[in-house]
Formats: sequence, structure tokens, C-alpha cells
Amino acid sequence: MRGKFIVIEGLEGAGKSNAQRVVSETLVAHGIEFITTREPGGTPIAEALRNLWKEGKDGEHTTDKAEVLMIYAARTQLVETVIEPALASGKWVVGDRHNMSSQAYQGGGRGLADLVDNVGSAILGDFEPDFTIYLDIEPSIGLERARGRGALDRIEQLNIDFFHRTRERYLALVKENPKAVVINAEPAIEQVSADIQQAVEIFLTSEK
Amino acid sequence: MRGKFIVIEGLEGAGKSNAQRVVSETLVAHGIEFITTREPGGTPIAEALRNLWKEGKDGEHTTDKAEVLMIYAARTQLVETVIEPALASGKWVVGDRHNMSSQAYQGGGRGLADLVDNVGSAILGDFEPDFTIYLDIEPSIGLERARGRGALDRIEQLNIDFFHRTRERYLALVKENPKAVVINAEPAIEQVSADIQQAVEIFLTSEK
Repeated sequence: MRGKFIVIEGLEGAGKSNAQRVVSETLVAHGIEFITTREPGGTPIAEALRNLWKEGKDGEHTTDKAEVLMIYAARTQLVETVIEPALASGKWVVGDRHNMSSQAYQGGGRGLADLVDNVGSAILGDFEPDFTIYLDIEPSIGLERARGRGALDRIEQLNIDFFHRTRERYLALVKENPKAVVINAEPAIEQVSADIQQAVEIFLTSEK
Repeated sequence: MRGKFIVIEGLEGAGKSNAQRVVSETLVAHGIEFITTREPGGTPIAEALRNLWKEGKDGEHTTDKAEVLMIYAARTQLVETVIEPALASGKWVVGDRHNMSSQAYQGGGRGLADLVDNVGSAILGDFEPDFTIYLDIEPSIGLERARGRGALDRIEQLNIDFFHRTRERYLALVKENPKAVVINAEPAIEQVSADIQQAVEIFLTSEK
């Protein structure tokens, strides 16, 4: 039987790594075999694209449109060579970010929704996650948490308005997606983890 | 006045470098200021994408769909940061390859015409060359010439059928493009150079 693709989405500092751990532990408890991925990245080519996008080259940074295409190049590389073969072999996949990140960050934050939609559907067709957990957090709280982890990267240094636009788009996308849930990521980590575990348990029951 | 964008297209070994030299000398003779470009490449980011595509990473190579997106990422980076500013400042641009290469190689050769058309129009809109010189050559003759230059790169190692499909698409694209001409690239270089120069002279006259 084909595996399921569970994706964790959310702003910087929303707790995606913790959520990936909670989802993984829940799947282990149910004896489900799975792999984990992160986007953009997850293959040598995709990680090279991630680094080129994050670091730039010789002082040059990607334009917003090039950013969209490089992220989708990394995505199709990962989907074709890792995610799709895993799902086809019956393994589940727990992803740290997928297409909804492009729709929210590049579509909402950067204002390139048409480009993202066109490229996204040309590349992905009807491939989509079976279940998306969106960790919702007020941008200033998320960025404060992310800052606690160390230096901010290229995305994290953007203006706070960018993250408000990104969050708004996330909330709109989740609202219209019956395969997605919102988890309030602002409470203490134990509470958030319990909410994530419960959401996964409900998804597993619905899949039986 | 806005500059003009002249592009040289053709298979491996068709003589694009010679053609870029002939076009450049003709523009110099007319006192026209210009820059030259090559695609994919021409900026640090775009060259890094070119290398990643040609060389792969840790033994991994790009999938055909990732190839399309990486080439368009390099293209939009070059158009936005180099070609468009040059044209806007009144300089002309003489390009070694542009969008028609993607339409012919990835669209015709790889069979990804829908993806190429969707991404191409989403990225470029109505941006297009003012004049395209397509150097037509029988694939086996072109590859024989390219082999004489040294080791074949990733594209040049592909099956000859790939190049026949690419050439067919090139010829169809040029036929429907009133801003493109076909130059027979099989005769001796002096003849080909004279034909290119004449084509550029006719274009210059039409632009006056």
C-alpha cells in the first residue's frame, strides 16, 4: 500500500523541528515505517540549490523570480528521486516544509502568487501532501524564538511585514485545504506537542 | 533609445562562437555599443546553476524537470540583472543562446514542451529577442565538430535522436517566428560568416 505524505508548515520559530519529532514518534508508536525530509533540500543537488539561494554567490543574491524557480527545482528533484519512490514503496514521508511554503513565502510574502501557482502546478500536477500540519504563530514571537537559536539567515532578516503577509497566506491556504489543520504554536512546547500528537492520531484513525 | 537583443541559436558544433564574433564585428563597424552574454550563465548565480546542472553534485544529476527550472532560474537572473538593464540603457545585447534553446532542447529534445512553455511565459512574459539567428546543421556533423574541440559535456553525450528532435523543434520555431532567420551552418566558415554578416546588415537596415 502506498505511504502517506505528512508535511509540517509554519513560520520561522514556529517549532517545525519539534513537530517533526512528535510526528515521527507517533508513527513509530504505530509501527509505521517512514523517512523524514526538509525543503528546500534533501538531495545533493537540492542542498546545493538551497545553499546557493541562502548564501548567494560572489556577493550576488538570487532575484525573487530566480528564488521561486530554484526552490521548485530543489522540490522536483526531491519529489522525483526521494519522496515519490518512498511513497510508492509503502514508506511514509514526514516533511519539514513542502509546496505550501512556496505559496505562503514566495506567493504571499514576495507577492509572486501567479508565478508560484503556474510553476507549482506545471511541476507537481496533482501531487500533494495527504496531511499538512500548519503551526501558527505571531511573527514577532516566532522570530524572537528563532533569534534565540543564533544568527538569522537570509529569510529571517526580512521585514516583519513580509512575515505578516506570509502568515496571512498560510491561514488562507489552510482554510481552503481539507487535508490541513492549524495548530496554535504559541503555548508551551508540551501543550503544542500534545496537540500535534492528537492531530496525527485523528489522521491515522481516518486513514484506517 | 532602447537597445536591441540579438540571439544566436543552434546545436553543438553549429558555430555559435564564430557567429557571436561576426555579429559583434558587424555592430562595431556600425558604431553600436553592445555587451555579449551566454546562457545558461553570465552572472555568478547563473554560472553556479550552469555548473551544478552540467556537473551534478556528489554523483547526483538533475532530473529533466529540475534542469528546466534551473535553466530558467539562470535565465531570469541574467535577464533581470544584466540584459534588461543593458537594453534599457541603450546598449545592444548579443546572446549565445536564450529561450529558444529551452524550447528546442528541453521542449523538443526532452519532450517537456508544456512545462517549458508554462514556465517560459510565466517568467519572461512578452520579453523576447529582437532578432534570432539560428545556425542550422545536421546533428552528426555538428557533434563531429564539437568532438574536435575536446571532451563532450553532459548534453553532448546524449543520443543522436535527442539532437534530431531538438533540430526539428528549432526549425519549427524559426518558421513561425518572423524575427528569426535560418543560416545554413554546414558550408565552410567563410561562407557561413558572410551569410551571418549579411543577415545582421539586413536587420540593421530594417531597424533604421
